[in-house]
Amino acid sequence: MEEDVAKINDNYLKLKAGYLFPEIGRRVRAFAAANPEAKVIRLGIGDVTQPLTPTILKAFHDAVDDLATENSFMGYGPEQGYDFLIDAIIEKSYKPLGVDLKTTEMFISDGSKCDCANILDIFALDNTVAIGDPVYPVYNDTNVMIGRTGDADDKGYYKGLVYMPCTEENGFFPAYPKEKVDMIYLCFPNNPTGAVATKEQLKGWVDYALANDSIILFDAAYEAFITDPSIPHSIYEVEGAKKCAIEFRSFSKTAGFTGVRCGLVVVPEELEGTTSTGEKYSFNKLWLRRQTTKFNGASYPVQKAAAAVYTEQGWKETQANIDYYMENARIIREGLTAAGLTVYGGVNAPYIWLKTPAGLTSWDFFDKLLNDCHVVGTPGSGFGPSGEGYFRLSAFGNRDNVVEAVERIKKNFKK
Amino acid sequence: MEEDVAKINDNYLKLKAGYLFPEIGRRVRAFAAANPEAKVIRLGIGDVTQPLTPTILKAFHDAVDDLATENSFMGYGPEQGYDFLIDAIIEKSYKPLGVDLKTTEMFISDGSKCDCANILDIFALDNTVAIGDPVYPVYNDTNVMIGRTGDADDKGYYKGLVYMPCTEENGFFPAYPKEKVDMIYLCFPNNPTGAVATKEQLKGWVDYALANDSIILFDAAYEAFITDPSIPHSIYEVEGAKKCAIEFRSFSKTAGFTGVRCGLVVVPEELEGTTSTGEKYSFNKLWLRRQTTKFNGASYPVQKAAAAVYTEQGWKETQANIDYYMENARIIREGLTAAGLTVYGGVNAPYIWLKTPAGLTSWDFFDKLLNDCHVVGTPGSGFGPSGEGYFRLSAFGNRDNVVEAVERIKKNFKK
Repeated sequence: MEEDVAKINDNYLKLKAGYLFPEIGRRVRAFAAANPEAKVIRLGIGDVTQPLTPTILKAFHDAVDDLATENSFMGYGPEQGYDFLIDAIIEKSYKPLGVDLKTTEMFISDGSKCDCANILDIFALDNTVAIGDPVYPVYNDTNVMIGRTGDADDKGYYKGLVYMPCTEENGFFPAYPKEKVDMIYLCFPNNPTGAVATKEQLKGWVDYALANDSIILFDAAYEAFITDPSIPHSIYEVEGAKKCAIEFRSFSKTAGFTGVRCGLVVVPEELEGTTSTGEKYSFNKLWLRRQTTKFNGASYPVQKAAAAVYTEQGWKETQANIDYYMENARIIREGLTAAGLTVYGGVNAPYIWLKTPAGLTSWDFFDKLLNDCHVVGTPGSGFGPSGEGYFRLSAFGNRDNVVEAVERIKKNFKK
Repeated sequence: MEEDVAKINDNYLKLKAGYLFPEIGRRVRAFAAANPEAKVIRLGIGDVTQPLTPTILKAFHDAVDDLATENSFMGYGPEQGYDFLIDAIIEKSYKPLGVDLKTTEMFISDGSKCDCANILDIFALDNTVAIGDPVYPVYNDTNVMIGRTGDADDKGYYKGLVYMPCTEENGFFPAYPKEKVDMIYLCFPNNPTGAVATKEQLKGWVDYALANDSIILFDAAYEAFITDPSIPHSIYEVEGAKKCAIEFRSFSKTAGFTGVRCGLVVVPEELEGTTSTGEKYSFNKLWLRRQTTKFNGASYPVQKAAAAVYTEQGWKETQANIDYYMENARIIREGLTAAGLTVYGGVNAPYIWLKTPAGLTSWDFFDKLLNDCHVVGTPGSGFGPSGEGYFRLSAFGNRDNVVEAVERIKKNFKK
């Protein structure tokens, strides 16, 4: 009877190793156990450190209070999110970019990781997918888990996915794939490299997608960290993008919501795919059906807190936190440069992408940084084969810690 | 080039109609627009009405305050949930049943709908699935969406799924399928019929699953409404269930969290499936990988609020809300019986399942109840073909509304 036991989704077994961050966690715990006196500074996982702002906190508390009386109680909300939040985002965050969106084109969620992963549900499995290399591991791993790939080769490339190397040589900006691809993940400002895309560069991708009938999955989780007014915050700033792009945004880094959980997806009504019989069909309708059936909406008090980000005072406070992190980025970037390291990113983006010195592998550098400086970062190779020889530091730390980490690195690495 | 556009997941097109509750919403909105003076009482969707209890509110506020200072700030938490919540549930809600669970066997989520839907990710597509009829539509629809079925027939049965009719004739308790099935959804106390399973009945299913190498997906979302001490709250009260069952629970109805969002899944370490090469593999490991890659944990303040349910005072208050709803159930059940209607459920379960009178279809009865009594319920046929001729009323209303709804029904239906 053995052979009749319920079968597992075998695709999971193709995944090479544990998810990157748990592995980092294991190494840091082992180091801390062996060196209990060491003050470890974490600039690795990219978790925020600054508290929610007063205006956001007040809205959060007020919404919890709504749940205290029968008259103001809020039960099931719309699975796609409350209009009060959707309309605030459209009005305050998209309209100033010249981007008009309908309420029905935006979907609020409990976070961008879920959205980036779940979006695959509405696409046929036989679409060809292109991802960056290095890349946010969720894009890669969820495509493996859903069964779009074969096994990984020795380098870590999964058969069936198209990888677009982003290296020093191409300025960390991917070249158009040579083969026809149906879905393309783009992330700008980029995690992990900190690279940004100019409007011209984004236009190139939109034109490419329109010409090749591809859909762009555009991850804009870090758009709030753009300070240069010429850099686009949304792919929809490019004409034609509504016909070829889905956009993801997150409150995690923008407003310190990593533990609070809120994100959003834009699926324009103009965006169409084809059925197996060759008819056009709306991705917006598919995503609505997906979300209403498999999701029950983000937490009501969380959505109220998120909406407060877009009040005048809320935005002022949120911007101050963003400025704080971007000053951290400057300190890291300039400090590491002064230490003789080659450093990318950290401008218009909260990640610093450094070249490991002396030919060290990414994990060797991780261990060296942890052992010598008691600083935790993220090995570039964890983001893909082309990340080997690079290392990510996050600007989301506490200022004193950032300054101390940079001092320790300077002391250790300066020739 | 048309034929090269990214392809959609065609399986979505097999879905017969919109999800049940949006359709109810549309009809109610149309009625309200045409009859603006009518006081419509909603006993349909099964949303709770009573506020969060004081102890839960306090914990919720305290956790929001944790996010107000850098020292107490909580960012990314464990994707599988905080130990403070998992351990409280195990200690206060499972141990008293004689069920021992490890911390690593429980996974906290943003709601049971998501869990019931997402669990399919870790199973191979070629497993055969059995579901009740009538049934919580999510079990059916998510199996269609993931591609496990063919089209629906005229009755609404999807080819490839095994349906287990639950009717007056079998006491709303499913018979074992004649064909070999790999996965079986069971829900007790049942949504929508309000039927409960005795320990002997559950033991029958566990023994069946063990003998036939099936996995039971046990939905215990309504276990808190059981008042009869002989009725099991968890399938793990039956010996051997850890080898064959995954259990889902929710805070939605138990503690009024429909808008707050928190649920949980238990995936025992002993539970194994097989790989395509016939080796055993742990479902617990697969679910951990799924959650760490595709989910980022439930909101921290929400988990703190949920943990407060299990404090002594929190549980006393929560139990008072449950008693309130169960008194509603009694009023509906007895009132409808007095009106000459045939009524099931409403004991150990918050749903009343009534037989539509005079051979009315479920939707005819829906329209009649809405037009004549201004009361909204849920058509039984919306839960599956065997629900035709039945109708669901929920006990989650406000007491005055419940009393008034029952009076209106009595007046209209009493011979």
